[in-house]
Amino acid sequence: MKKIITLGEVMLRLSPPGNQRFFQSHSLDVEFGGSEANVGAAMAYWGLNVAHLTAFPDSEIGWAAAGQLRKNGIDTQFIPFIPGRIGIYFLENGAMQRSSQVIYDRAGSAFANFDGKDLNWDAIFDGASWFHWSGITPALSKECAELTLTSLREATKRGVTVSGDLNYRSNLWKFGKEPHEIMPQLMELTNVFIAGTRDFKQCLNVEIKNFEAAREMAFNRFPDLQYIVKTDRISQSSSHNTLSAVLYEEKNSHSSKSYDMTHIVDRVGTGDAFAGGLIYGLLHMEPKEAIEFAMAAGAIKHSVPGDVLLCSLQEVIDLASGEAVGKIKR
Amino acid sequence: MKKIITLGEVMLRLSPPGNQRFFQSHSLDVEFGGSEANVGAAMAYWGLNVAHLTAFPDSEIGWAAAGQLRKNGIDTQFIPFIPGRIGIYFLENGAMQRSSQVIYDRAGSAFANFDGKDLNWDAIFDGASWFHWSGITPALSKECAELTLTSLREATKRGVTVSGDLNYRSNLWKFGKEPHEIMPQLMELTNVFIAGTRDFKQCLNVEIKNFEAAREMAFNRFPDLQYIVKTDRISQSSSHNTLSAVLYEEKNSHSSKSYDMTHIVDRVGTGDAFAGGLIYGLLHMEPKEAIEFAMAAGAIKHSVPGDVLLCSLQEVIDLASGEAVGKIKR
Amino acid sequence: MKKIITLGEVMLRLSPPGNQRFFQSHSLDVEFGGSEANVGAAMAYWGLNVAHLTAFPDSEIGWAAAGQLRKNGIDTQFIPFIPGRIGIYFLENGAMQRSSQVIYDRAGSAFANFDGKDLNWDAIFDGASWFHWSGITPALSKECAELTLTSLREATKRGVTVSGDLNYRSNLWKFGKEPHEIMPQLMELTNVFIAGTRDFKQCLNVEIKNFEAAREMAFNRFPDLQYIVKTDRISQSSSHNTLSAVLYEEKNSHSSKSYDMTHIVDRVGTGDAFAGGLIYGLLHMEPKEAIEFAMAAGAIKHSVPGDVLLCSLQEVIDLASGEAVGKIKR
Amino acid sequence: MKKIITLGEVMLRLSPPGNQRFFQSHSLDVEFGGSEANVGAAMAYWGLNVAHLTAFPDSEIGWAAAGQLRKNGIDTQFIPFIPGRIGIYFLENGAMQRSSQVIYDRAGSAFANFDGKDLNWDAIFDGASWFHWSGITPALSKECAELTLTSLREATKRGVTVSGDLNYRSNLWKFGKEPHEIMPQLMELTNVFIAGTRDFKQCLNVEIKNFEAAREMAFNRFPDLQYIVKTDRISQSSSHNTLSAVLYEEKNSHSSKSYDMTHIVDRVGTGDAFAGGLIYGLLHMEPKEAIEFAMAAGAIKHSVPGDVLLCSLQEVIDLASGEAVGKIKR
Amino acid sequence: MKKIITLGEVMLRLSPPGNQRFFQSHSLDVEFGGSEANVGAAMAYWGLNVAHLTAFPDSEIGWAAAGQLRKNGIDTQFIPFIPGRIGIYFLENGAMQRSSQVIYDRAGSAFANFDGKDLNWDAIFDGASWFHWSGITPALSKECAELTLTSLREATKRGVTVSGDLNYRSNLWKFGKEPHEIMPQLMELTNVFIAGTRDFKQCLNVEIKNFEAAREMAFNRFPDLQYIVKTDRISQSSSHNTLSAVLYEEKNSHSSKSYDMTHIVDRVGTGDAFAGGLIYGLLHMEPKEAIEFAMAAGAIKHSVPGDVLLCSLQEVIDLASGEAVGKIKR
Amino acid sequence: MKKIITLGEVMLRLSPPGNQRFFQSHSLDVEFGGSEANVGAAMAYWGLNVAHLTAFPDSEIGWAAAGQLRKNGIDTQFIPFIPGRIGIYFLENGAMQRSSQVIYDRAGSAFANFDGKDLNWDAIFDGASWFHWSGITPALSKECAELTLTSLREATKRGVTVSGDLNYRSNLWKFGKEPHEIMPQLMELTNVFIAGTRDFKQCLNVEIKNFEAAREMAFNRFPDLQYIVKTDRISQSSSHNTLSAVLYEEKNSHSSKSYDMTHIVDRVGTGDAFAGGLIYGLLHMEPKEAIEFAMAAGAIKHSVPGDVLLCSLQEVIDLASGEAVGKIKR
Repeated sequence: MKKIITLGEVMLRLSPPGNQRFFQSHSLDVEFGGSEANVGAAMAYWGLNVAHLTAFPDSEIGWAAAGQLRKNGIDTQFIPFIPGRIGIYFLENGAMQRSSQVIYDRAGSAFANFDGKDLNWDAIFDGASWFHWSGITPALSKECAELTLTSLREATKRGVTVSGDLNYRSNLWKFGKEPHEIMPQLMELTNVFIAGTRDFKQCLNVEIKNFEAAREMAFNRFPDLQYIVKTDRISQSSSHNTLSAVLYEEKNSHSSKSYDMTHIVDRVGTGDAFAGGLIYGLLHMEPKEAIEFAMAAGAIKHSVPGDVLLCSLQEVIDLASGEAVGKIKR
Repeated sequence: MKKIITLGEVMLRLSPPGNQRFFQSHSLDVEFGGSEANVGAAMAYWGLNVAHLTAFPDSEIGWAAAGQLRKNGIDTQFIPFIPGRIGIYFLENGAMQRSSQVIYDRAGSAFANFDGKDLNWDAIFDGASWFHWSGITPALSKECAELTLTSLREATKRGVTVSGDLNYRSNLWKFGKEPHEIMPQLMELTNVFIAGTRDFKQCLNVEIKNFEAAREMAFNRFPDLQYIVKTDRISQSSSHNTLSAVLYEEKNSHSSKSYDMTHIVDRVGTGDAFAGGLIYGLLHMEPKEAIEFAMAAGAIKHSVPGDVLLCSLQEVIDLASGEAVGKIKR
Repeated sequence: MKKIITLGEVMLRLSPPGNQRFFQSHSLDVEFGGSEANVGAAMAYWGLNVAHLTAFPDSEIGWAAAGQLRKNGIDTQFIPFIPGRIGIYFLENGAMQRSSQVIYDRAGSAFANFDGKDLNWDAIFDGASWFHWSGITPALSKECAELTLTSLREATKRGVTVSGDLNYRSNLWKFGKEPHEIMPQLMELTNVFIAGTRDFKQCLNVEIKNFEAAREMAFNRFPDLQYIVKTDRISQSSSHNTLSAVLYEEKNSHSSKSYDMTHIVDRVGTGDAFAGGLIYGLLHMEPKEAIEFAMAAGAIKHSVPGDVLLCSLQEVIDLASGEAVGKIKR
Repeated sequence: MKKIITLGEVMLRLSPPGNQRFFQSHSLDVEFGGSEANVGAAMAYWGLNVAHLTAFPDSEIGWAAAGQLRKNGIDTQFIPFIPGRIGIYFLENGAMQRSSQVIYDRAGSAFANFDGKDLNWDAIFDGASWFHWSGITPALSKECAELTLTSLREATKRGVTVSGDLNYRSNLWKFGKEPHEIMPQLMELTNVFIAGTRDFKQCLNVEIKNFEAAREMAFNRFPDLQYIVKTDRISQSSSHNTLSAVLYEEKNSHSSKSYDMTHIVDRVGTGDAFAGGLIYGLLHMEPKEAIEFAMAAGAIKHSVPGDVLLCSLQEVIDLASGEAVGKIKR
Repeated sequence: MKKIITLGEVMLRLSPPGNQRFFQSHSLDVEFGGSEANVGAAMAYWGLNVAHLTAFPDSEIGWAAAGQLRKNGIDTQFIPFIPGRIGIYFLENGAMQRSSQVIYDRAGSAFANFDGKDLNWDAIFDGASWFHWSGITPALSKECAELTLTSLREATKRGVTVSGDLNYRSNLWKFGKEPHEIMPQLMELTNVFIAGTRDFKQCLNVEIKNFEAAREMAFNRFPDLQYIVKTDRISQSSSHNTLSAVLYEEKNSHSSKSYDMTHIVDRVGTGDAFAGGLIYGLLHMEPKEAIEFAMAAGAIKHSVPGDVLLCSLQEVIDLASGEAVGKIKR
Repeated sequence: MKKIITLGEVMLRLSPPGNQRFFQSHSLDVEFGGSEANVGAAMAYWGLNVAHLTAFPDSEIGWAAAGQLRKNGIDTQFIPFIPGRIGIYFLENGAMQRSSQVIYDRAGSAFANFDGKDLNWDAIFDGASWFHWSGITPALSKECAELTLTSLREATKRGVTVSGDLNYRSNLWKFGKEPHEIMPQLMELTNVFIAGTRDFKQCLNVEIKNFEAAREMAFNRFPDLQYIVKTDRISQSSSHNTLSAVLYEEKNSHSSKSYDMTHIVDRVGTGDAFAGGLIYGLLHMEPKEAIEFAMAAGAIKHSVPGDVLLCSLQEVIDLASGEAVGKIKR
């Protein structure tokens, strides 16, 4: 059983029920989610040994967040409970021509102030095969940027494969550094990028004509880079998207089939489910199969409410191979 | 900030949750809604000063109805609380090939018996730019027909622009008068009609070949008429409609783009959202932009549960201009 | 008013709310349902006199199940309350590319142990026009297989028309007999088969090339057979199916129109609604109209949550005739 | 198995969930209930054959009301579906020092306009042992008063025992008659009164000093009277009541024990549960046991949400005999 | 109609349903509440003209908070929408021997950063009779302390009566000032204190033997002081409290009756309901009646879920006079 | 951190919401619970290292059950997923004079067929301080009885302290053995009994006069016995119980204070919470303190919905020491 380490903030997610707008009624659905932990949870459901690194407030809220990770099969033994608040995001699910909306209230969270000085890296990486991070974490604070760098160094010096979802978001990066002051050194320590043209532009502060140029530049600049993975999404509406993905090696590329997805249930976490599928795929399959598995994982997440892909290995495999789609399984 | 006056009944809306049929489970979702107040609420959400005229029962039910209007940003200071019951409508949301159903239980409501004798028209219309009524109100009772006429006279003598959604419904008009005995004098005092061919036929008791004939007749017969607005809806199913609209001046016309709407959430109140968008548009934009804005407002309402369009100005503008449809806004 | 008798197990159905996966939240929606009782309930809603034969545990659970049947208009006077448990099925509603899942926990139920020795067949069939069974019942246990045979003999000796939904399911038939040891003698006593090619193969243990061959063989082998009815379903996804049906007489056949069904609400019980529509149709209409009525009943069930088609006669007739689909009925 | 006939209106009951005030949130819990049908439902749960006489609107609302009665075990075969609306009552459950509130919206209901001319009294009373009515029905309308009188005449001429819950309510009786113009002739045809001093005063329009005087007068004036039953309730708060009852014969009386009831769940329908227990008791037990059984039924109803006592015979018997109160029954 | 001005933060309140512990299930009930706005809402429900002063984030969350105040009848015209987050408090309702718990997440809220420089005091206090503040506001930040002082000066220079709920809370007051550096000058401008011995000690940084000493000192030191009001609560458990209050003039005092409150529904906001009742009482009644009215308002709030007392004037008067407690009002 | 091992079945618990009766509405609340796992969960919440031994069905149901244990902090690494069904219990919460009811549907569960042959006892007991079992397990099946015996032998041979909740239930013990054929050898290997007089009688098949006699006999017969613990409960009603406990050593005894518990929320699992408190107490405190801690844990569980005591160490300690009962903790 492979062991995977993920790093990142886990927030309290509050969303109105069904298709309601914010505060239209008097209750909010509650989840805990965060990009990297979502990636880990997908793989934990498939039987891998996943440990997540983060910090939680030492209160009923933080205890509940840790409990939710454990319920999803994630090992929480390395997570400290420290003073502070939990980051919150309010999510309104879009429908039809109405977009989904996220209101972040994550400033000053316990995780943003977490320096990870006391983490026991030997114990964390003992037996680990893979480490996953995203561009959200270094954007949160100086402490988080340093923690990301430290974790990458600890991973690579132990020969652990590293994947990074570059995931540039303009409304983060407010602590005084620009992405290009931080991201390049993180990318140097990373073997698999999940990234599009815009991510490369922003993280490296370069002008690039198109994805092909970005790909060439990246394989030149980062010698340890093995794969770049890119998804292509067309949003006809909040309820209808078309999605496909390509896995690029330096010379070759492997395209997944394209999914036409109507009746979308929950769009959040679909990229994380894809990333979870990608890591699982690269650990267990050939690249061509891996990108199909990843894309099936990403597609089926659109049908599952919440941040996390709760789907068995068999369900993902069946969808990747086109079997029994939409039948009742008895 | 423009001030708008709307007039009409507000009912208690009771509907089974989700896609359930009436009384399939043991709870009903509760809203308060009525065509003209829905029109006003859309505009109040966009920052206009909207006051609604109606009457409520002097009980917890009427107080709650007024509270709901206030929550939606509507000024309720002119609404009296009088003896009587509240009108009720039971709504079952359709899905797929199954139609939505409305069961009305509105006879004998406080509003139907309301004569508005004590309304202070000077205060009501002080600073007002627009008055909106619909063909539902004069159909309810002799008192309501007279109240509509009075309000139109008070509005026009103060130079307030008047819009009317003719909205002929055959199952109303039971108090002893035919529409053509009442509607023509109301239409004379109205500057903007929202109406289709059938509405003209029934309200004027004339035979008309088609909409073009109706339009010609209307501009001839009603000298104060500025615009006729018509929507065209194709119902593929309860979950899938196609919708567009045209704004007619006497000589010109302006067509909106057409919206293909799958995954409909709530069909009720979409015409009211459209009317709200129309009034807002005509107050702030050129006709061509106004009809696009109105149609976007009407379209996006299909994604919002309840009677009322709860959408920011920016959301409607974005949809009208085709921006970011279906993306997650963070 | 026609009297119909149906026979079969009624189970407790437990399903997570909305699009959730099993146990994602802390509540389960509760229904009682079973194929043959669902068939009866559809017809009871249309005003027929339907009595269901089954057995329930003598506990609050069984009493509630009987109450639910009565609520749906079914006569429960012949149902005994006996020791034992109720069969349970856990249903997870699929969405998009994710399949629906059923987990059965029905072994050892009160019904599976029910021999029906004390049933008063004279009272049951007094005035009855039709008897309906399905291939699920004889698959459950030796007792159930014998009860099915007894009931068919009692029906046919009184001239009651018999329909059977062959409905072969490989995960049943575990009590020691193969389908072909039981089903042929039941089919001999049956006048209307609902069946596809695979059902004939499994129930008769024969090799058949295609449905045409099966049809020819069936009309040859079973002299009392009047109709074979077959539905054709294409599952684009859990949310989108296309469905049509054909009614075969020995020499003629009648095809229904095809329904393109997007935005599916509940796929379970759609075959039962179809069967209910078929029996109602054959009792009241010509074959061509009957198959259209049956198909409309089956189609509209996809929009109704729960096991049972809760639709008025008028709604089914309107859909069969293509009227007012997707309009709001006020 | 005894057959019981009950007569009266069944209303739609709408109440906010839990301890909420009216319209504090966006849903209402739904029940159907009415005093006399509640009486019948209690007995149907204990296995008696109960048929209820009323009229329902011919709509999904009326059909659902009838379905609910059937679910509760009541025979609905004599109930016609006629044009009109259903009576509604809004109920807010009190708590602590805050009183429960009822807002009636029952004027002009289908039942209030129901004359019962087409009722088949021979079929209704075939095999019947008991008929139950209440003072609510004659208060509703001229038609209802006449229907009550007719039903009492039809009952007594067939030797059926008659009980009447006099239940004077000052806010009813608005159709032009005073109680004393109607009630005395109904009381003449009644064998068991459920009544307190105030009921006698109002129904007979007499001055009476106290209950003893009322009792003496009643047994003198109404020769067919067998029993008067009176409950005594002390309301410490909405959550805490003390309750006992006495059964009076002309010469003797039998007192129940007194129940101290804290943590009240639903106060509505407790008198009906008591009446159901009384009829059951008088049909199957000695007077002393009957009043204990009745009081236990009334007491335990305080713990059951909704209008109806859903308690098995054994539960009532156990409480009446003081066994295992508050233990977990496994 | 009296006009009242209140000042203070309004927070988002998130609480698990019923008696659940934090995050035991997947939803949270949503309210908006804050001590001083709660005081205002109680009076708005009784028909007074109440305007609240606060600041909200300019987002759907702030808009919803304002809408909720309007629903409760509060005038929100003076409330600006500014950048920032909303303060949040997580509330777990206690039961039995388990205490209620509040987790605050209010640091850095829009209100805490609000200086109120642009408030139009002439408009705010035009026609006002009363101003109410609490000791929570000056504890939040330097800006809030100054805003409180400014508002008191503006109120008193216009002759508006001022009440202050001293409400010392040790876990606030973190911005660098001690209570005694701020509170005395606020108390000098206040006519009515709601305060106990501990409040005096902490706010004035003095040693006081007992309440009598505090009272004497307060009337000596603050010449504009008219009344001190103190409540006395005994907490037998979270579900059972006993509560009474006394109104002190310099020489006289008036005691309310004592309420024994079992079956408590929601303990939060009971002091605010009491304060609302006190202001209403002092504006409309003699002191003795005022303290009874206030205590009845505070007592009945224990039965109402949420932060706000939603009770009619009549209900409070009835309870104060001991009428019809616990009866069903029809 | 102490390590505790618990053994026993974990069932799916289905209960109607609030105070409803079974199947009164259309949803059931879902929990997973079992006596011994409940004991463990209480201690895991207090920070102990708890591993539970059981077996789950290899399906979404079993996976969810394991996830729930992990959420509660329990180590699930020793739990196998095997073919079979999950045991179910339907629980109706009583209120007032109405008793709670449990309907078991646990026959033939995966656990009942589990022989534990593959359990790695060295790994399980590595570092363990305590083992807890109950009399439910040996009652379920021959396999379970043997598994219990094996686990006790494995525990005692490693010097692990053993506690057993004798918990005789007459409706179990159906697999062919009497309690006295099994229990004595289990009791021999046990150091702490939780038991009352009836448990001793049934488990040992002896006549005993009273608890004193039982105590004397037990300490004589079982040389390794250190403590007997007995709780005394008086059930005034389902909502009101009085509870205390005594810890007996051979010569001494320690009594807890008595708790008067009104407004009971959930009675189930209170004995398990007590047992968890007892083990925690005996591991960390003197006997006198231990019994007070245990009783406080048991008492406070009555206020927590679900099977499991979700209370922090501090809350239990506060209650045991009588601090701040019923205050709001901010």
